[in-house]
Amino acid sequence: MITEELMKSISVKNPAKMLMLVIDGLGGLPIDGKTELEQSHIPNLDKLASKSVCGLADPISPGITPGSGPSHLALFGYDPINYQIGRGVLEALGIGIQLTEGDLAARGNFAKMDEKGIIVDRRAGRISTKINKALCDLLQNGIEEIEGVKITINPGKEHRFVIVFTGEGLGDGLTDADPQKDGKPRIPTSATSDSAKFSERVINLFIEEATQLLKSQDSANTVLLRGFSQVPKIPTLTELFKIHPAAIAVYPMYKGIARLVGMDVLNTGEGIRDEIKTLRNFFDQYDFFYLHIKDPDMFGEDANFDGKVRALEKVDEFIPDLLDLEPDVLVITGDHSTPSLLKSHSWHPNPILIFSKFIRTDSVERFDERSCLLGGLGRIPATDIMPLMLANALKLKKYGA
Amino acid sequence: MITEELMKSISVKNPAKMLMLVIDGLGGLPIDGKTELEQSHIPNLDKLASKSVCGLADPISPGITPGSGPSHLALFGYDPINYQIGRGVLEALGIGIQLTEGDLAARGNFAKMDEKGIIVDRRAGRISTKINKALCDLLQNGIEEIEGVKITINPGKEHRFVIVFTGEGLGDGLTDADPQKDGKPRIPTSATSDSAKFSERVINLFIEEATQLLKSQDSANTVLLRGFSQVPKIPTLTELFKIHPAAIAVYPMYKGIARLVGMDVLNTGEGIRDEIKTLRNFFDQYDFFYLHIKDPDMFGEDANFDGKVRALEKVDEFIPDLLDLEPDVLVITGDHSTPSLLKSHSWHPNPILIFSKFIRTDSVERFDERSCLLGGLGRIPATDIMPLMLANALKLKKYGA
Repeated sequence: MITEELMKSISVKNPAKMLMLVIDGLGGLPIDGKTELEQSHIPNLDKLASKSVCGLADPISPGITPGSGPSHLALFGYDPINYQIGRGVLEALGIGIQLTEGDLAARGNFAKMDEKGIIVDRRAGRISTKINKALCDLLQNGIEEIEGVKITINPGKEHRFVIVFTGEGLGDGLTDADPQKDGKPRIPTSATSDSAKFSERVINLFIEEATQLLKSQDSANTVLLRGFSQVPKIPTLTELFKIHPAAIAVYPMYKGIARLVGMDVLNTGEGIRDEIKTLRNFFDQYDFFYLHIKDPDMFGEDANFDGKVRALEKVDEFIPDLLDLEPDVLVITGDHSTPSLLKSHSWHPNPILIFSKFIRTDSVERFDERSCLLGGLGRIPATDIMPLMLANALKLKKYGA
Repeated sequence: MITEELMKSISVKNPAKMLMLVIDGLGGLPIDGKTELEQSHIPNLDKLASKSVCGLADPISPGITPGSGPSHLALFGYDPINYQIGRGVLEALGIGIQLTEGDLAARGNFAKMDEKGIIVDRRAGRISTKINKALCDLLQNGIEEIEGVKITINPGKEHRFVIVFTGEGLGDGLTDADPQKDGKPRIPTSATSDSAKFSERVINLFIEEATQLLKSQDSANTVLLRGFSQVPKIPTLTELFKIHPAAIAVYPMYKGIARLVGMDVLNTGEGIRDEIKTLRNFFDQYDFFYLHIKDPDMFGEDANFDGKVRALEKVDEFIPDLLDLEPDVLVITGDHSTPSLLKSHSWHPNPILIFSKFIRTDSVERFDERSCLLGGLGRIPATDIMPLMLANALKLKKYGA
């Protein structure tokens, strides 16, 4: 098993440029005999596959369906079992909150309880997003900090919000302050380790103060918090691999994960065309680019087979633009499969191609699941992708003498 | 993940004979569409491949380019991340010094310093090998031991030597006693762990005594030492697998690594023909043979594509001689790829074939990188080779009931 120490010791800086194109939810399953990729007319990807070395990449391990957090950590070369991004942190990243190491985040609900402290509606009747925003303002203005810990409350949709605790000495390992069901009493959070004792105290004080502030409100009179999690201590890509990385993504969660591993997140627009333009504009300034394309996953989640086919065909149109930039190493793969048949992420491996000067090309002439099966990369865990990219960019020294 | 304990517990002794032919730098990359192997006329290897089970073996892990130390440890069944052979030890092995467990070795330079202790020439004007030898004799005669630690000084070429410290209580983890650049003061070594404190003391005393002895010399007046490393504690192949192994190699480094893992190193001549003769002469006396062939790697390092092709064709001529010996298990593979295109070791996997009575043959009919991709072994880490050889020799019992 290669280690982070090994990678640190053999990585070297050079100007070679690497581009990792992540097509969210790339892999699929056959419906009427063909997967979405197999059904797609993607001549540019096919032509590129025929000049590349291809294969299949398991996001985590055979049979394991990943969320976006672990699947992206693996793509970026981190052990996704060792580093975990908790629910609260992922939720915060998903709505675009910038977090730094040590921050503790949680998901919140506005809720209704009766005079005996029994939760009668965990979602406070799904209050409007507008009322939610007003309640968040009320809490934020009333509670700026607790025992030196800064409180930041970020409204979401309907009854949902995300809360971030920022300060010294906050530990992880806390139970949900949420009975999960209506008709049960409100409960405080409880530390599951000594290092979370101070967090427990601050959080429970926050819940009391928030409940006091909400006392006279009609729509909600308390808050429930769950999914407490701390931004993990994670070495940056620069520390591990001596690269200068940038991320181009439209959706906040992907920007957030990229920021967590030390990438610069570049401002871009709303579509692939904007993302490619951003890539072109910044191509001189970085040696690693993560370019994220969301649409195929969304159509897969909606069980929209034809929509996913069209989204893949749309990606294909932009491949010549990527090649025009002449990256030294180009990788195209997915973070996980999202088969329309399952309407969700799945465990199936993703097609992958690596295009560089230093590959053994193979017989693959079509960029789809079953063609890539016979590719020269064979079947690899996604965590091997980063070492392979770095090797092809000649950014790894020999290990040992 | 299989462990050494598991292998110890299931290995059994029997008379079956195993031969591992390691063609150094076997794998390549295509130039004008073909790799060196693909360009080679190797009818004997092709015929053997068609009767064998084939595949591709990653020396360490995808993307990682190994030196000869880790790549051979992996071939012999050792975890090459867990066991590391340091620079000093490898240098010592490379010039044929026999080392035993606990020995501490380092690379040395004769150097020139001014009266203030500033190193003015780290290589002492690249003194002749003859003067080097005289200076080594001077030091060796003057310093036999320090605080019970035996000192052995071995001249190399020009200003270089290798020093070995032999004694009780020598620990590893020492910084270089070498400023690495001219114009900087001479520096002592410094222990990076408590267990290396005694080594630090002995080494720094040696440097002082050597500098005293060199005081009146014109060509060099001090020594610089770097790459301190200790022979790793490593179980022998006999301890792990109950085999009686022998090595046949021309170059000292490969003999040295083989000796480290407990092989008998057989005297042989300068070429493949001599090595095969040695194999034949000793075939009755051992049950495992490691046969190392160097030439393809050297041509690869020289970017000599045609030379590597010819070297591979030369190996092919001797395949019938190996088969005449009727080994029960024959493995042919490389320690790492050395593509002429890269002029160096590389991370690409090597073709491998296993020939025995107990294999599932596959459709591979050509012994090259792209043909072996479709072989029955698939893509395996090199550490799986030894268990597969032992299994095919029926030297492994069932694991569990």
